Amino acid sequence: MKSTVVFQPAGCRGMISCGNSVLTAARELGVAMEAPCGGGAVCGKCKVIINEMSNVSPVTEKEKKTLSAEELTNNYRLACSTQIYGDVLVIVPPESSLLNQVVLETGTVRPFSINPAVKKYYVELHKPTLADCRDDFSRLKAAMESRFIQLDKQITIDYQVLGSLPDVLRQSDWKVTVTLWQDSEIVAVEPGKVAKSYGIAVDVGTTTIAAYLCELTTGMTIAQASCMNSQVGYGDDVLSRISYCVTNEDGLAKLQQLIIADINTLVSNLSDKATINPEDILEIVLVFNTVMHHIALHINPQYIGSAPFAAVIKEAVNVKARELGIKIAASGYIHCLPLEAGFVGADNVAVLIAEQPHRQSKMSLIVDIGTNGEINFGNSEGVLSASCATGPALEGAQIKFGMRAAPGAIANISIDRKTKEPEIEVIESLVDNKTCLPRARGICGSGIIDAVAELFKAGIIRKDGSFNKDIQCSRLRKGATGKFEYVLAWAAETAIDQDITITQKDIRAVQLAKAALYAGAKILMQKKGVAEVECIALAGAFGSYINKVNALVIGMIPDCDPASVVAVGNAAGEGAKLALCDNEKRSEAQEVARFVQFVETAAEPNFQEEFLQAMYFPHGRDQFLHIAGIIDKIPRS
Amino acid sequence: MKSTVVFQPAGCRGMISCGNSVLTAARELGVAMEAPCGGGAVCGKCKVIINEMSNVSPVTEKEKKTLSAEELTNNYRLACSTQIYGDVLVIVPPESSLLNQVVLETGTVRPFSINPAVKKYYVELHKPTLADCRDDFSRLKAAMESRFIQLDKQITIDYQVLGSLPDVLRQSDWKVTVTLWQDSEIVAVEPGKVAKSYGIAVDVGTTTIAAYLCELTTGMTIAQASCMNSQVGYGDDVLSRISYCVTNEDGLAKLQQLIIADINTLVSNLSDKATINPEDILEIVLVFNTVMHHIALHINPQYIGSAPFAAVIKEAVNVKARELGIKIAASGYIHCLPLEAGFVGADNVAVLIAEQPHRQSKMSLIVDIGTNGEINFGNSEGVLSASCATGPALEGAQIKFGMRAAPGAIANISIDRKTKEPEIEVIESLVDNKTCLPRARGICGSGIIDAVAELFKAGIIRKDGSFNKDIQCSRLRKGATGKFEYVLAWAAETAIDQDITITQKDIRAVQLAKAALYAGAKILMQKKGVAEVECIALAGAFGSYINKVNALVIGMIPDCDPASVVAVGNAAGEGAKLALCDNEKRSEAQEVARFVQFVETAAEPNFQEEFLQAMYFPHGRDQFLHIAGIIDKIPRS
Repeated sequence: MKSTVVFQPAGCRGMISCGNSVLTAARELGVAMEAPCGGGAVCGKCKVIINEMSNVSPVTEKEKKTLSAEELTNNYRLACSTQIYGDVLVIVPPESSLLNQVVLETGTVRPFSINPAVKKYYVELHKPTLADCRDDFSRLKAAMESRFIQLDKQITIDYQVLGSLPDVLRQSDWKVTVTLWQDSEIVAVEPGKVAKSYGIAVDVGTTTIAAYLCELTTGMTIAQASCMNSQVGYGDDVLSRISYCVTNEDGLAKLQQLIIADINTLVSNLSDKATINPEDILEIVLVFNTVMHHIALHINPQYIGSAPFAAVIKEAVNVKARELGIKIAASGYIHCLPLEAGFVGADNVAVLIAEQPHRQSKMSLIVDIGTNGEINFGNSEGVLSASCATGPALEGAQIKFGMRAAPGAIANISIDRKTKEPEIEVIESLVDNKTCLPRARGICGSGIIDAVAELFKAGIIRKDGSFNKDIQCSRLRKGATGKFEYVLAWAAETAIDQDITITQKDIRAVQLAKAALYAGAKILMQKKGVAEVECIALAGAFGSYINKVNALVIGMIPDCDPASVVAVGNAAGEGAKLALCDNEKRSEAQEVARFVQFVETAAEPNFQEEFLQAMYFPHGRDQFLHIAGIIDKIPRS
Repeated sequence: MKSTVVFQPAGCRGMISCGNSVLTAARELGVAMEAPCGGGAVCGKCKVIINEMSNVSPVTEKEKKTLSAEELTNNYRLACSTQIYGDVLVIVPPESSLLNQVVLETGTVRPFSINPAVKKYYVELHKPTLADCRDDFSRLKAAMESRFIQLDKQITIDYQVLGSLPDVLRQSDWKVTVTLWQDSEIVAVEPGKVAKSYGIAVDVGTTTIAAYLCELTTGMTIAQASCMNSQVGYGDDVLSRISYCVTNEDGLAKLQQLIIADINTLVSNLSDKATINPEDILEIVLVFNTVMHHIALHINPQYIGSAPFAAVIKEAVNVKARELGIKIAASGYIHCLPLEAGFVGADNVAVLIAEQPHRQSKMSLIVDIGTNGEINFGNSEGVLSASCATGPALEGAQIKFGMRAAPGAIANISIDRKTKEPEIEVIESLVDNKTCLPRARGICGSGIIDAVAELFKAGIIRKDGSFNKDIQCSRLRKGATGKFEYVLAWAAETAIDQDITITQKDIRAVQLAKAALYAGAKILMQKKGVAEVECIALAGAFGSYINKVNALVIGMIPDCDPASVVAVGNAAGEGAKLALCDNEKRSEAQEVARFVQFVETAAEPNFQEEFLQAMYFPHGRDQFLHIAGIIDKIPRS
């Protein structure tokens, strides 16, 4: 004989053979539960609450010793010592719930609970008869309630789902899987049992967009994809995008359509990779800076662009996918994480819920490198944040041979100090498993940082960023415009039949970007009265490719022990994934958006001076003691 | 000096000169408040609650005598005796609130409170500065809260309203009128002060659609309009509409589009009449039978058409106007009143909240005449309801010269018993104030009932409905089809240059309709064990034109003292209006939909026999003692 067992708040349910323990049931149904002693009733960690005491085995002597009198009164039991005899609802208190862990490519471990906004429930309904002619919706709600599914009192059903409800119920013989959004709205009713549930996390950057398809019952990322933001044709940075919206009558609508089209392309791409139907995707979590946020929601971004830089809405926004024209399930939701302030947007909030400086005692600096760089500095006592107009150079844009961190990109470079000859590493294609070496197509962000750092270390460029024309080297030459450039790869070695070079202009773009980041970080440190940084997290789309020492060599970040610098990958994307899989993270996002204090660094009196000094490699004035060994070896010219 | 005074729950607010009494303020701001003594501090009816006691005049000796100790502790005051010295929030308890009353053309008075789902609030915001750079939405919420506007904790803003928010705020110098829907969602933000608020109540019948434009701060109906339901081209009754949906691939979509187009035509028509912008209309309340309800919401109506007649959703549905393509404010809502059961729909629920048999001790019969007739019988101890397939004859459809109760319709008829000559009354056009008599274009529902009753009384038709060929009369003739017909108006007297006649087929249609109503009523009476009806309310689109005695003469309703028969007009439309203007009525609708017990009369064993007997005039078997004087004078043939 089997009984129905339901675990809350996970929402897992299933038929379990009578006589099995609640712990066994939990394992069978995939409920993560603490049980370090392996079910020996020793550790007392597998505490659960059971209201239907008559449907389970009596309290054992061991349980009487392990559980407090109060716990026993409140129907607490040990899952390992409680046998199932009939239908039960098992409540797993937070202390017994085992958190899932996601391990990034970079090795960062981020614990979170599996508690998505969209949850699926399989239910079987009583068929209507002349004696019981309740309406389909009431019938559905009653079936859910009889299965202990916690429903919002005012539960509603999406208008379009309602339209398909009568046919789905009858064609599936009244056995359906209901998808609830935030326990309050039915957003899908599918025939039969549907176990898997999908959502997408998207980080919409000014220059690049990264998307992750997650299976929401496990929190696993099952596919990822990225593309350029099509808006790049309408301006390289957020200010030029604002300007396009303000000066063109349909500018806002046009730029919005571009973002939506990009997201739709990624949705289709991810669905193909995972061989699922885009209609099966029921939620997208979006993170972006304030300008991308406003444009995506068709909100005039004009007023964010000038003092007092007021955003239109900072709190999280939920909007139906069909309202935005995003082609997932029409009834599905788009959740935009809350914004912080001015140019510091939901992407930084996502970085914060991923990195959680506000829950640590150590003072940490988090640098998120994008077209608009974001810097956070602080700990549980307070976190300051700032936005830096870095430009897209560090993402491989506005660089002569720049490209995204995709197959064919030069991602790592070293230059021999004597011969001045480079050694390059190209990102391999994951699709074709050829044994021949991949041929370069361009240089991505990490490659650009390496190139500049290595040119500096080899003495080919000077402290001020200019090429040292006295260097004798076949790779240093005058380019077509008369300006100097360094050849990283000869045409014959590339996939594009052109010499891949680093130009003087490229180096200037890197200088501007790194100076903006460094000056921003410096000002936050000064605000906190801290002269040295204990640890640095480097976030950005380039993931694990970045060479931390070279980031120090060019002075992109303040001096720090390289061992304490961690590349954390696309932390904004990770934060978006966390918010997709765990509702608690959405609350944390709302809290942290209020907790973090925004600093308008450009308005600080010493910003100009800090910025100018930071243009030098590694810096005009500041000492880089942790990499003194490297700096001291650089030939002076 | 002026102070801000806010009245709750009405939500009215304004600037009032200091020194004025709260009662004066209430009158100035249009808050309906009891004050039978005219403000003399005598009657004690104008009780209000004021929390900011320091901003009003001290408690007077008269108040100390009139108010209880408990009331005084709880900050109760008399509005007439309390002078305003500063900003105050005035809470008007229900006992002091004067209910508005709507007087129908028929004289029925229906009390209700002005408490619409959409409410407007004028607010002035603090402009953003570098020191206060909150987002626009937070700023708006804060301004509302500082004006004591009760907000739902999770208040949201419509996606499209959000898009226009920054420009509206700045272009209006941060002084705007916010429209809140159900205290939980901002559905409009308009520049400056906007006092008036509009909504529409629509009764979507199977054959005709009636719509009423109301000003929501006063509950006044400012325009009305009606039209044929364009679906009549796809079947005369609900079953044929269902059949069209089932047998045509796009049948449901097509019929939905027709309803939406009709509603849009009425919206545009009403807006023109009231010279307002359709965008200013923020809510529509729809009532209809279950089939019209499902079709309007694009829900497959197939399963309502056959046993066990299960509806898809009975509870009230709220859906954005733009989702349905209804052209009022895009962010506005369409509220569909709850359904009862099977074919007894939201229109009957509307009739019930208008007529309120469930709140009366007297047993009353309510007959709502439409293509699908609804009958309710009972009192506060229980109400039974039934649906009757009357067909559209009584609405003037399926009748050779039938038309709606519009200008040109013959609405009242009497036939001289001796000469057999008719006297007709034609509905005058309200538009052209000509002195000449209006010329007939056709016959509306009340005219048809009169025609049949008068033909019967004059002996021109027999008890079984057939024409008495022995009658010598120039108006009785064989028509084109060889069947007899009676000429109501000669071509020369009409506006259509044709003789307007009543045919044998017309009489048969009336017989079927009235028999369905009578048999239904009879079965409900039998269920309740009641042989006689105390009072009857006749509801229907024909309004006050109906001749109650003639309704008895043809046996459309059970025998009853004509003085106790009341024509209540379009009660479904009135119920829709009440739900539009008063949220409490929506709760009442939900309660009454559950309270009323549906009887499937056609499934009753004696239905066929009752129906057959009811085909006769006035009835095959039942005595009509209250009109015996009339019946007895009818010449037998």
